[in-house]
Amino acid sequence: MNDIAPNRRRRAGGRSGHTARSGGHAIEQMPWRLPRNTDRPIEPLPEEGVRAIHDGAMRVLAEIGIEFLNDEAIGHLRAAGCKVEGQTVRFERAFVEEMVARAPASFTLTPRNPDRAITLGGGYILFGNVSSPPNAWDLERGKRPGDFETYREFIKLTQYFNCIHFAGGYPVEPIDIHAGVRHLDCLHEKLTLTDKVVHAYSLGPERVEDVMEMVRIAGGLTHAEFDASPRMYTNINSVSPLKHDWPMLDGAMRLARRGQPVVVTPFTLAGAMAPVTLSGAVMLSLAEALAAIALLQWIAPGCPVAIGTFTSNVDMKSGAPAFGTPEYMRATQITGQMARFYGLPLRSSGVCAANVPDGQAMWETMNSLWAAVQSGTNMVYHAAGWLEGGLIASPEKFVMDCEVLQQIQRYFEPALLGTTEADLAIDAIAEVGAGGHFFGCQHTQDRYQTAFYGPFLSDWRNYEAWQAAGGVWTAERAHGIYKKILAEFEPPPMDEAIREELADFVARRKAEGGAPTDF
Amino acid sequence: MNDIAPNRRRRAGGRSGHTARSGGHAIEQMPWRLPRNTDRPIEPLPEEGVRAIHDGAMRVLAEIGIEFLNDEAIGHLRAAGCKVEGQTVRFERAFVEEMVARAPASFTLTPRNPDRAITLGGGYILFGNVSSPPNAWDLERGKRPGDFETYREFIKLTQYFNCIHFAGGYPVEPIDIHAGVRHLDCLHEKLTLTDKVVHAYSLGPERVEDVMEMVRIAGGLTHAEFDASPRMYTNINSVSPLKHDWPMLDGAMRLARRGQPVVVTPFTLAGAMAPVTLSGAVMLSLAEALAAIALLQWIAPGCPVAIGTFTSNVDMKSGAPAFGTPEYMRATQITGQMARFYGLPLRSSGVCAANVPDGQAMWETMNSLWAAVQSGTNMVYHAAGWLEGGLIASPEKFVMDCEVLQQIQRYFEPALLGTTEADLAIDAIAEVGAGGHFFGCQHTQDRYQTAFYGPFLSDWRNYEAWQAAGGVWTAERAHGIYKKILAEFEPPPMDEAIREELADFVARRKAEGGAPTDF
Repeated sequence: MNDIAPNRRRRAGGRSGHTARSGGHAIEQMPWRLPRNTDRPIEPLPEEGVRAIHDGAMRVLAEIGIEFLNDEAIGHLRAAGCKVEGQTVRFERAFVEEMVARAPASFTLTPRNPDRAITLGGGYILFGNVSSPPNAWDLERGKRPGDFETYREFIKLTQYFNCIHFAGGYPVEPIDIHAGVRHLDCLHEKLTLTDKVVHAYSLGPERVEDVMEMVRIAGGLTHAEFDASPRMYTNINSVSPLKHDWPMLDGAMRLARRGQPVVVTPFTLAGAMAPVTLSGAVMLSLAEALAAIALLQWIAPGCPVAIGTFTSNVDMKSGAPAFGTPEYMRATQITGQMARFYGLPLRSSGVCAANVPDGQAMWETMNSLWAAVQSGTNMVYHAAGWLEGGLIASPEKFVMDCEVLQQIQRYFEPALLGTTEADLAIDAIAEVGAGGHFFGCQHTQDRYQTAFYGPFLSDWRNYEAWQAAGGVWTAERAHGIYKKILAEFEPPPMDEAIREELADFVARRKAEGGAPTDF
Repeated sequence: MNDIAPNRRRRAGGRSGHTARSGGHAIEQMPWRLPRNTDRPIEPLPEEGVRAIHDGAMRVLAEIGIEFLNDEAIGHLRAAGCKVEGQTVRFERAFVEEMVARAPASFTLTPRNPDRAITLGGGYILFGNVSSPPNAWDLERGKRPGDFETYREFIKLTQYFNCIHFAGGYPVEPIDIHAGVRHLDCLHEKLTLTDKVVHAYSLGPERVEDVMEMVRIAGGLTHAEFDASPRMYTNINSVSPLKHDWPMLDGAMRLARRGQPVVVTPFTLAGAMAPVTLSGAVMLSLAEALAAIALLQWIAPGCPVAIGTFTSNVDMKSGAPAFGTPEYMRATQITGQMARFYGLPLRSSGVCAANVPDGQAMWETMNSLWAAVQSGTNMVYHAAGWLEGGLIASPEKFVMDCEVLQQIQRYFEPALLGTTEADLAIDAIAEVGAGGHFFGCQHTQDRYQTAFYGPFLSDWRNYEAWQAAGGVWTAERAHGIYKKILAEFEPPPMDEAIREELADFVARRKAEGGAPTDF
């Protein structure tokens, strides 16, 4: 605003009851919903650019090839007619295009609570919790290695927030649980403390089979029912450049054979594991992803898959990875163009390089979240709680991110865009007249309760009211909210028989020694 | 990232020299440039929606009318054939459309340094400093009323940052300078400490004439040269709803007659001074803006004007104004659609309701800045330094915002979107091979110095390196940078004769008593 006298603005301002955080509940939050992205995606590349990246990816697959460190996968691809030399597989363009064309443009995943079913693709943009940080950080305890108790805290936050649509990987790595049984304890907590779609790490056959079995039990499903439609998913990463690891391929094939979705997300850090040029890094990422998708579509035609992007850049001064940069945004948008070209659902992420939930953390996170919107991303990984390039999970950041995610959900509400006679309010304008005020008029009274988004974390009070209330900065407010949430958390209902069957399964598998940890 | 082992990421990470803030200068910043917005704007409304808002605005002007508290303006509009009752003017649709069609789609403003000329429209997105807060806040001094010394600090920041393209209103109101001579002291500082396009408040004939004369003197221009093309501008606000004030209209007409640009920015806070519905608030804003533009185009056909949006919403729980909300974003995008419909340049703002430069400040500011991009905004007011809904100017926030503005400028660099054979780097990928690393290869060596954006404020070091360096959060880092900038600031060169003429003018006008303060 330029020339408005401050006192006029002050009068428009005034004190805020800030009731979002008062009352019996920790917060008043939005109800569960699957937001649809109605914005036309940003398409930074012209048609020729899309074509050039596709041609380049096909040349990489045909001329250079991809290493598959998995004999079963190599066997399948040899049978499919691909050229195999040692562990390097070269793909004919026509084969890749035919296989990719088999993949569905969208699919629905149904967790143990059918009301929490999610559709990947179809214009939806869905959010998941931060996944896989080895460390946790909060204002009270600082940075420390992840443990099981902290894992449970984040799983509760994941369930609590309606704007978190799926429970991704471990929100923090519980290193106090032996790796051989960690997946059993973690999935037991995830399946009992949440009723949302869960994820399986592809870290060996036993783990993958155990998780699929636990999801089946938690859903009260027969094996046939489990196999009949998507119930959970895995995300695999290539070892960029040009390599797919044994356990990732093994897990992906196990899920694909049972109709469970696989997200393929290369981690192509431009200037490190990928070319320093954005189109080169995106092209490499696509080549690696399409190679795995071609394999999965060969062994399980039409199986649900999504393409993931994790192309960012390093700080060339230090080699440190950077996230939420202008380059990250464009790479995400370009990958979105390519995903639409291939007709595949897209996964991207909410990311930052910041070490604490401060201003930098939020501008980097906002860059990545708006890039997710602009790219037509369907599945936003790490949408809440991520810090330090994914090395830290923070509950304050989780709460701050959920405030932002709710705002993105609100942004997509069609109600904001009405232009009916009643919306235009010409009668109300005539009634109020020059210099009048709209607070009191009927048109406002009829709508004010739902007219605007109400935040649970943003503090809209003026400085004096904010200061009188303690002058609390955002991260500290978020800290208080996360503790209130944990204090009032109630797990979703679960049938007792199912709860026992799940516990018995975990006990039995632990008695059997869990999963080997020798690879 | 999901399944990447942390140690792999750590290796990709490592320590950052963070050289952006080392070396002789306070920071290494981007060179001056006029960024072009190459993204297709987001258009939330269908064709019918745009039509409905235009029809509604025309009905408001024809059926309800606008109060013009300025007899000269009323005289012009009566002569133009508008219906006048008392101070209420009703406009025929055809007249408004004909007058608006006279306005140029873009125009160039040339300040005393021609290298700092800016073009409003033509796809450019340009940034200005925060304008008009009555108070300042920083980490050291807290919140306090604006004074002249603080004003000078912000003017230096405005000149220092190349990503600030124009010097808007007073970055803070220096209340220690008597209102009668404040404009003389403020413009003297602005015209000597900066060489960028400056703004005149429309707060009475003497002030407006003084500022135009000072800009003419600072530019070493004859009166004819000054009148020949845009050299500075004013921004006027209506008194929403439905009213234009005397001094605003007087100033606007004075500038229009001399070919100087006028930005018309109603402040329509949905639920307060405007309908609670977004389309109603935008429509009212447009009606008020178009009424003033019609007047200006009648008295000075083809004069440069821009349409400004400042439509946001109140917190209906408290009446407090909210900024950078989902509703704010959609209102800005819708106004962008309308500005393109009318063929007028658009002004919006970088805004937040937060009281301190924390996480909330940045997510609200990012929402408003990305809305500026998405709406095709040409002139971004308050792009650096704004807090508390415009009641506070903060140097830390100024520095933080400039980091973000540089990233938006980088986002628009065509270099990010290359897809040539060299960009795709297929040879480099073949050279590096599976499991290799791109740091060392020639393709990277040839490009790494310019491949990626280098921030001056973001800290990309890992947690341990960041902590070892003091564990400084963003706002504190920004505090250190703003002090370094002030310490090294050097004003742009100015011809001695011009400097003296300017000083003499100020002295003479002060001796004459400056401007009356009785209105």
